[in-house]
Amino acid sequence: MNAVDIINKTKKKVPLTDEEIKYLVNGYTSGEIPDHQMSAWLMAVCLNGLTEEETVSLTLAMRDSGDILDLSCIGKITVDKHSTGGVGDKTSLIIGTAAAACGVAVPKMSGRGLGHTGGTIDKLESIDGFRVELPFAEFAEIVNKTGFSIISQSGKLCPADKKIYSLRNATGTVDSIPLICASIMSKKLALNADCLLLDVKCGSGAFMKTPEDAEKLGRLMEKVGRAAGKKVRAVVTDMDTPLGCCIGNSLEVREAVELLQGKVKGRLYEVCMELTANMLELAGKGSLSECRAMAEEAVSSGRALAVLKETIGLQGGDSRICDDAGLFKTAKYSHVIYAPRDFEVVSVNAEELGMASLLLGAGRINKGDEIDYSAGIVLEFELGDKISMDAPLMTLYSDSVSDFSEAALRAYNALTFKTLTGVALT
Amino acid sequence: MNAVDIINKTKKKVPLTDEEIKYLVNGYTSGEIPDHQMSAWLMAVCLNGLTEEETVSLTLAMRDSGDILDLSCIGKITVDKHSTGGVGDKTSLIIGTAAAACGVAVPKMSGRGLGHTGGTIDKLESIDGFRVELPFAEFAEIVNKTGFSIISQSGKLCPADKKIYSLRNATGTVDSIPLICASIMSKKLALNADCLLLDVKCGSGAFMKTPEDAEKLGRLMEKVGRAAGKKVRAVVTDMDTPLGCCIGNSLEVREAVELLQGKVKGRLYEVCMELTANMLELAGKGSLSECRAMAEEAVSSGRALAVLKETIGLQGGDSRICDDAGLFKTAKYSHVIYAPRDFEVVSVNAEELGMASLLLGAGRINKGDEIDYSAGIVLEFELGDKISMDAPLMTLYSDSVSDFSEAALRAYNALTFKTLTGVALT
Repeated sequence: MNAVDIINKTKKKVPLTDEEIKYLVNGYTSGEIPDHQMSAWLMAVCLNGLTEEETVSLTLAMRDSGDILDLSCIGKITVDKHSTGGVGDKTSLIIGTAAAACGVAVPKMSGRGLGHTGGTIDKLESIDGFRVELPFAEFAEIVNKTGFSIISQSGKLCPADKKIYSLRNATGTVDSIPLICASIMSKKLALNADCLLLDVKCGSGAFMKTPEDAEKLGRLMEKVGRAAGKKVRAVVTDMDTPLGCCIGNSLEVREAVELLQGKVKGRLYEVCMELTANMLELAGKGSLSECRAMAEEAVSSGRALAVLKETIGLQGGDSRICDDAGLFKTAKYSHVIYAPRDFEVVSVNAEELGMASLLLGAGRINKGDEIDYSAGIVLEFELGDKISMDAPLMTLYSDSVSDFSEAALRAYNALTFKTLTGVALT
Repeated sequence: MNAVDIINKTKKKVPLTDEEIKYLVNGYTSGEIPDHQMSAWLMAVCLNGLTEEETVSLTLAMRDSGDILDLSCIGKITVDKHSTGGVGDKTSLIIGTAAAACGVAVPKMSGRGLGHTGGTIDKLESIDGFRVELPFAEFAEIVNKTGFSIISQSGKLCPADKKIYSLRNATGTVDSIPLICASIMSKKLALNADCLLLDVKCGSGAFMKTPEDAEKLGRLMEKVGRAAGKKVRAVVTDMDTPLGCCIGNSLEVREAVELLQGKVKGRLYEVCMELTANMLELAGKGSLSECRAMAEEAVSSGRALAVLKETIGLQGGDSRICDDAGLFKTAKYSHVIYAPRDFEVVSVNAEELGMASLLLGAGRINKGDEIDYSAGIVLEFELGDKISMDAPLMTLYSDSVSDFSEAALRAYNALTFKTLTGVALT
């Protein structure tokens, strides 16, 4: 077996055997197969695809490249949720705690953000004292106690994915559905929860730009997960416009807390309740409508907020923020964009708003960049609102940037309006 | 401009600009663009192809990566010939000297063999004392004197091709018509002769296995050469069966000498005369039929042999071999394969015979391997001959291998027979 023969097979669309894929993944992880052979293979995969069987083999070989967690010490059925990322996606904090409040265990590992998309770990680190790196035993103990914990992805899980992902970034081989599937699912299968709900974001703010691709990725991840013996469901949710009105780490945690306090409804609430219901149904807690009622009750009763508060406390964070939103630090600088005329906002480009937020310091352009946790954008309207001239449209926040001109222009351009006389403007 | 954007364009079949291709080739040659990015791009080219304009840009960028020869010191019209390589291809020595004897200048640079295909430089080095590395001034002087000289490809020509070729070998990106075209044509355009005849070999013994691919490569090389202002013609010749009856370095030089002595006719003679006629016509020496007559006369008069003899002498080789074939060293060991029954040979697999010859020591498995110049195979029949049981079928020669069993089996299996009662055997 050698790498050139394997590359040639994929180039000629001859399916690889399980052994060949293991040889490739293990050889690359150990350093025996060099970057230039792996990148040629990855490009062949981008252009020729992989069969479902090959994708299963690739995912399992990547999963097996490192540790696989043993969650048997957790006394309840474990349910993991994965979102393919997007702009202003604070759903993990809401869904995880709501599901935990309904009697399932939600042990989560999450990542940091890059580019215009945020990461749950960054959001949590905006809470004073919150520890995202815990030993496994402590993580499991918190999950057993509160039903919910989120920690940072361990380096011991899926080293193959880490190496392959950074090569893909450097070689134009990111946008391949089987490679995206293997990257996500290898990490999820290494975490090893009983059930897995996959929230595939679709639209301008997400990796999958079309419903067809999102559907394809979702179905493929379901197949791979089931082949590994897991209960898996994928749902596609819209990420053309951002979820909720806040973008930015601290701002998003605040919005999540306010939702759990019963103060936020709208699309964010709808999506979170629907995803929670799906997680519960997957875990066998009842029919979808029963589970939806349970999820809503977990929020309205304050039990989901109690889970969040206890978990933040156990992970070293200042849990008083769950009672007093005034404890969230506000940014040093802020800037309000006012409506220049009477109009209605027809659409919001989530990716562009994410980029504007990045300019304010809320995200990373390069891996390892420092983040300004208080930076971000708050939308002061809902889609469809009639907005009067001079009414506030958005508020921009930053600790690190005092000149808002570039970010404001970008944020403003993310909106598409129609005037109240019916003519569309950009 | 950056490499990832360029890779992504080719991946999406968006044609690259001339500037982008230059950036890629120059960046890779200088080491700024790493192997893993170049190999991803090469794989995208293998699968998505390049436009003719892109292939021209790539070829010229590769040509411009090193020296371009100035042949203005050669007093005649210069004609180069390139053969895409194959088994038992000794045409360069015959065609070059025959064309030179008809009044054109043939300055040639050639390469070494790898795998089952031989290289003209190896064949020449089988002549005692023959120097394949000459300073340019001496090379030009010999061409001016005899009309013909062959030296080894200079490292200063097309360093980009050298680096890309070795990467292609390691990454399964060899079989791409635009990449093969750019590799061949960049070197030919750096040699910089006025006219160029391209002999595209087709069949089991050659890189191009089908007539369609050979035709495609030929037409593409013509377009690239013409875009660079050269007179170019491509002809496709068959390499399913080896040319002539000898395979192996010293054996092939001997066969070439014997042809120039008027002792060899058959397909080898036909192909050589046709290619020479095309070179002469391309150089404006007359119509194709007039040029054919001139080529034949150059051989029958002994003038082509005289050119070879003088060139060998000027390059330090023992030129007496042109008069006395007995001076060719014979191998220490030999082995005759006899016909096991009465039959007729229907076809000869040139690639398999090349592999058998490699087993005898006549070629290189890896770059830099030593060659046994006397090793090789002589076919003792012509296709269509009726062969009696126990008549000699092939003779195998080697200085380095005394156990012929493996090579003999491989050589025998390269033949397809039919019994004289009409049943085909393998």
